[in-house]
Amino acid sequence: MVKVGVVGATGYTGEEIVSALLRNPGVEITALTGLVEKEALFSELYPRFAKKISLVCRNLDVEDVAAKTDLVFLALPHTVSMKMAPQFLEKGKKVIDLSADYRLPPEVYKEWYKEEHSDKGNIEKAVYGLPELNRSKIKKALLIANPGCYPTSVILPLLPIMEKVVQAGSAVIVDSKTGATGAGRKASVALSFGEIDENLKCYKANEHQHMPEMEHILSVASGKDVKINFVPHLLPVKRGIMSTIYIPHKDLPDINDLHKLFADYYKDEPFVRIAQPGYMPQLLDVVETNFCDIGIKSAGGMLIIVSVIDNLMKGASGQAVQNMNIMLGVDETARLV
Amino acid sequence: MVKVGVVGATGYTGEEIVSALLRNPGVEITALTGLVEKEALFSELYPRFAKKISLVCRNLDVEDVAAKTDLVFLALPHTVSMKMAPQFLEKGKKVIDLSADYRLPPEVYKEWYKEEHSDKGNIEKAVYGLPELNRSKIKKALLIANPGCYPTSVILPLLPIMEKVVQAGSAVIVDSKTGATGAGRKASVALSFGEIDENLKCYKANEHQHMPEMEHILSVASGKDVKINFVPHLLPVKRGIMSTIYIPHKDLPDINDLHKLFADYYKDEPFVRIAQPGYMPQLLDVVETNFCDIGIKSAGGMLIIVSVIDNLMKGASGQAVQNMNIMLGVDETARLV
Amino acid sequence: MVKVGVVGATGYTGEEIVSALLRNPGVEITALTGLVEKEALFSELYPRFAKKISLVCRNLDVEDVAAKTDLVFLALPHTVSMKMAPQFLEKGKKVIDLSADYRLPPEVYKEWYKEEHSDKGNIEKAVYGLPELNRSKIKKALLIANPGCYPTSVILPLLPIMEKVVQAGSAVIVDSKTGATGAGRKASVALSFGEIDENLKCYKANEHQHMPEMEHILSVASGKDVKINFVPHLLPVKRGIMSTIYIPHKDLPDINDLHKLFADYYKDEPFVRIAQPGYMPQLLDVVETNFCDIGIKSAGGMLIIVSVIDNLMKGASGQAVQNMNIMLGVDETARLV
Amino acid sequence: MVKVGVVGATGYTGEEIVSALLRNPGVEITALTGLVEKEALFSELYPRFAKKISLVCRNLDVEDVAAKTDLVFLALPHTVSMKMAPQFLEKGKKVIDLSADYRLPPEVYKEWYKEEHSDKGNIEKAVYGLPELNRSKIKKALLIANPGCYPTSVILPLLPIMEKVVQAGSAVIVDSKTGATGAGRKASVALSFGEIDENLKCYKANEHQHMPEMEHILSVASGKDVKINFVPHLLPVKRGIMSTIYIPHKDLPDINDLHKLFADYYKDEPFVRIAQPGYMPQLLDVVETNFCDIGIKSAGGMLIIVSVIDNLMKGASGQAVQNMNIMLGVDETARLV
Repeated sequence: MVKVGVVGATGYTGEEIVSALLRNPGVEITALTGLVEKEALFSELYPRFAKKISLVCRNLDVEDVAAKTDLVFLALPHTVSMKMAPQFLEKGKKVIDLSADYRLPPEVYKEWYKEEHSDKGNIEKAVYGLPELNRSKIKKALLIANPGCYPTSVILPLLPIMEKVVQAGSAVIVDSKTGATGAGRKASVALSFGEIDENLKCYKANEHQHMPEMEHILSVASGKDVKINFVPHLLPVKRGIMSTIYIPHKDLPDINDLHKLFADYYKDEPFVRIAQPGYMPQLLDVVETNFCDIGIKSAGGMLIIVSVIDNLMKGASGQAVQNMNIMLGVDETARLV
Repeated sequence: MVKVGVVGATGYTGEEIVSALLRNPGVEITALTGLVEKEALFSELYPRFAKKISLVCRNLDVEDVAAKTDLVFLALPHTVSMKMAPQFLEKGKKVIDLSADYRLPPEVYKEWYKEEHSDKGNIEKAVYGLPELNRSKIKKALLIANPGCYPTSVILPLLPIMEKVVQAGSAVIVDSKTGATGAGRKASVALSFGEIDENLKCYKANEHQHMPEMEHILSVASGKDVKINFVPHLLPVKRGIMSTIYIPHKDLPDINDLHKLFADYYKDEPFVRIAQPGYMPQLLDVVETNFCDIGIKSAGGMLIIVSVIDNLMKGASGQAVQNMNIMLGVDETARLV
Repeated sequence: MVKVGVVGATGYTGEEIVSALLRNPGVEITALTGLVEKEALFSELYPRFAKKISLVCRNLDVEDVAAKTDLVFLALPHTVSMKMAPQFLEKGKKVIDLSADYRLPPEVYKEWYKEEHSDKGNIEKAVYGLPELNRSKIKKALLIANPGCYPTSVILPLLPIMEKVVQAGSAVIVDSKTGATGAGRKASVALSFGEIDENLKCYKANEHQHMPEMEHILSVASGKDVKINFVPHLLPVKRGIMSTIYIPHKDLPDINDLHKLFADYYKDEPFVRIAQPGYMPQLLDVVETNFCDIGIKSAGGMLIIVSVIDNLMKGASGQAVQNMNIMLGVDETARLV
Repeated sequence: MVKVGVVGATGYTGEEIVSALLRNPGVEITALTGLVEKEALFSELYPRFAKKISLVCRNLDVEDVAAKTDLVFLALPHTVSMKMAPQFLEKGKKVIDLSADYRLPPEVYKEWYKEEHSDKGNIEKAVYGLPELNRSKIKKALLIANPGCYPTSVILPLLPIMEKVVQAGSAVIVDSKTGATGAGRKASVALSFGEIDENLKCYKANEHQHMPEMEHILSVASGKDVKINFVPHLLPVKRGIMSTIYIPHKDLPDINDLHKLFADYYKDEPFVRIAQPGYMPQLLDVVETNFCDIGIKSAGGMLIIVSVIDNLMKGASGQAVQNMNIMLGVDETARLV
């Protein structure tokens, strides 16, 4: 039985990993850590885990966690992961990192995350954990850079058309909307119910730190210089991301051909679904699941794509578990349905 | 004292007109109609009006309403208004119509509303009731075509830049998000709480009936052939519209000049506010008010505009009352603050 | 492999049964019916089931469904089930009925559901499907009357104290709050987002049809004449019921003894959890799970109990699947974690 | 023109007072204070006030505020108000305090707010600002203890029946539900959207600090020793309180007589409404208004009362403005409709 630790289990993504791992046997959770005043049963911190897991949650002690596990999920804030990951790697543990710390080249990282990267050596060894793009590399990886939530919702619908539709240098417009758990479990007036309920807020228009991640991964994957105009919005929902993508194009392929292109590209993927022609997917289609649903429409010289994911599942923890399944060589959908 | 009737008072927009009219003296509500099983005190149908108004709500009887009023608001479904408006006009009553029936040329109307217009003669006489565009015509109007909610949120932010930024034939991209009252008070599974709560849904992408209204009004106002790519989304909020507008442009004016352009354009308008540089307005800034707030940002060869309104206020009933105030020659902000 | 049919799969509870059954192997869904304009893939009606199930959903044809199944779930409206259940029973199929049709003595049924019962003979044979009360009978049952959502949230927390605390004839006060899916998927103004969002509504105070169900089951179980004062409220949430129960008592046992009483009573139950002393459970602890969580507090000569369930899970479909598991003699928690 | 200051204008109640005061002329806001990093236009802190007020918001300087005002609203946390109020009173300013600091006898205050009262001398001089109870005293008051939100929702529906129905020593059961703004604008995980949305939480059952306020005011008003069992719940709505009140009684008056009793008691009150027989008021009836709506029902030897208010209006700021109107001798409903 593979022994797994969840570092940062008290945040939304950490908690979601625990939930997924409990859903099916085959792996055993042997360590849980979080910022806690004093160690306590995880089910006392979060009563929803009573009668489900009887493990104590402690503040992180790398030695202790490493001694108990074969693989660790790091559900830590950006710039914290890069201090912890190398310690686990040195001890021969596999690491799936949910932060942004291993997703970008070091100079791009510094520009957007405002801190010099402290573990540059491992950036190159890390595999960007998008199974639909890197499945064979993930199988052999020791360190996974689990993709960002917004980038997952944007890269998956663009991959099939990088060759035929997306033009180098020509800006793709991405209008994204996310649920509030995307910002994590935090004490903040801006995240309080009174400020989010019945509201919609545009933030970091064209200056969100996930924009360079989209551009970097798509450029590497396609060999083209991809430009994204990315404008995120904060929705009054708990979970879910919708990205509405606009690609102006003078000479679009026929919509049926485009539909076939998408459907063929993802026909063997367990967690990507192409909507029937005429239907645009909605958040409820994917919330609480690991699916990414994609719908397309062509009109007025414009390709319009709608993609939806659950930000905590395919956008974070579900994808992390999918990566774990691939690394362990077990059924990729285990614990995710 | 001017005597006013509200036809269709049992819908969300009708109810909102009643609320506004009760807020300040100067006009008297003398008739309320709606689809009711039997006539009843309005405050029995909607207990929130108890101790506020003691008028009976009846099914529409044009003779009766006309006999009691000087001016009527028609808060009726599309294609119903055009049967009623001419009857009130013939009897010398002023009409403010909140439906789409008098906003478009008859051939465009037929294409989008799937019905031959039955009152073509009055379309030309109708004034499109956007005070910021047509104030002087509204003063003398007998029939007001009150603007649609989405068009109000799109036309107001585009008017100041029609000359210098928006290019003929080049598509403007509008990603709009609306609250659920936008669809009216209706029995419908699609509008039920279980389907809208925690959801986000894209609908009628590039085929919504408000798109030709935006294009028509902006084209007439600017003398340019304006093309809009309009994609609306249904939000899990009760009130509010946000339109995020993308205008790709190779040679954008400096953002400070653009900001000044907007601020100057609307400096004397009581209900349009230009956000401070760096701030993008949110729904909560305008909900329950008659304001349209506009924020702008320039990045990556793209002008990004965010505009927000309350769909029931500036997007419908508030604007209707603003039009009434202008027609009556009283303070334009009366009953709206 | 046991073959199962879901009759009424297009409602919220039917859909939830399908989701649960898909979660683990061991049973096979072989028939889906619902009120559909024309037969269609279930995943076309509900795209969230794409890549999960490829079965057609048809209007109900009893012969057809019976021929394909060993056991059927009836997720039908009250008064419809009693027409269908006997047909399936005659053909030797096991039936789990989620309506109220087999929960009450016929004369009580008639009083509250306003219709003469048309299948009285089967009422006696039906087993009230609350596993914590009737597990051994459920094992052998041919017809299960699956409990109502509110009654489940009230009966479970009262069972442990029927002997020592609840007094015959003395009214227990139950203030319940439910999510909107409790009313089913329906076109209704009262269920529309605009009427439920940001609202709270008390309805059918002391005249809800679930009140006699609570009284009947508790009276039979305890041999006492139990009286309930039941006041339900409609919450702006999708799922979940909280029942806050007040039992005035002059001579309450010590709270620690009470806590032990509850904990002992349910210590072997997989789906009932007693909260740690000092903690009152909240909806989020149980939403999307089959648990019933119970918290207790004693103060001012009053025992206060808070119980929470997911109305679609332990309150309906999850409990129905739990009953199926018991009837099939498999792990009771299969498909429910 | 009366000059008014709002101390604590950056919280939800402070902001709501500003909104109300702006609605009608007759008073002038001359000072705004709040915890701000540096002084700024109130409309820069809260863009929803742009084009409505152009006053700077500063950290509190008592000298400065007193010099500019005749009357101040203190929208400060408990235990802070009692340090500020005496300073304004000494300078001859009228004070309307929205905290709990002047509502209770000093020994009860200390027991529930865990701090020795530092301004005992003014407690006796303060008038409990419930106009329906103390209108004539409010007219002459120099210091108003503005009632708590929950107490307002409980005292108003109990006042009419203190003599004939509520029995000394016999516990009244109050199950209350409040919107999230009741806790103020704060950075707190417990108040974050992710924890409140789709949730319902019972808290401080029978140990909330508003319970002694209800008991004290009702006991003084009736001359009876009133006992309340008060259990509050946190709702996923922004505004509104519903209190469902249960009064077991062996010999209840006829429901029609009870209805008449309530209706007569409040017939001249501008902000209390008794629901039609058969109707129970809901939050939407009163949200954004200063009304308290009350519905009653009698069943099973129990009187059931439902009362609803907007916690920020009749439960705090609206009532404060109503008190100001009374103190100033102007129309009591000014700025509140």
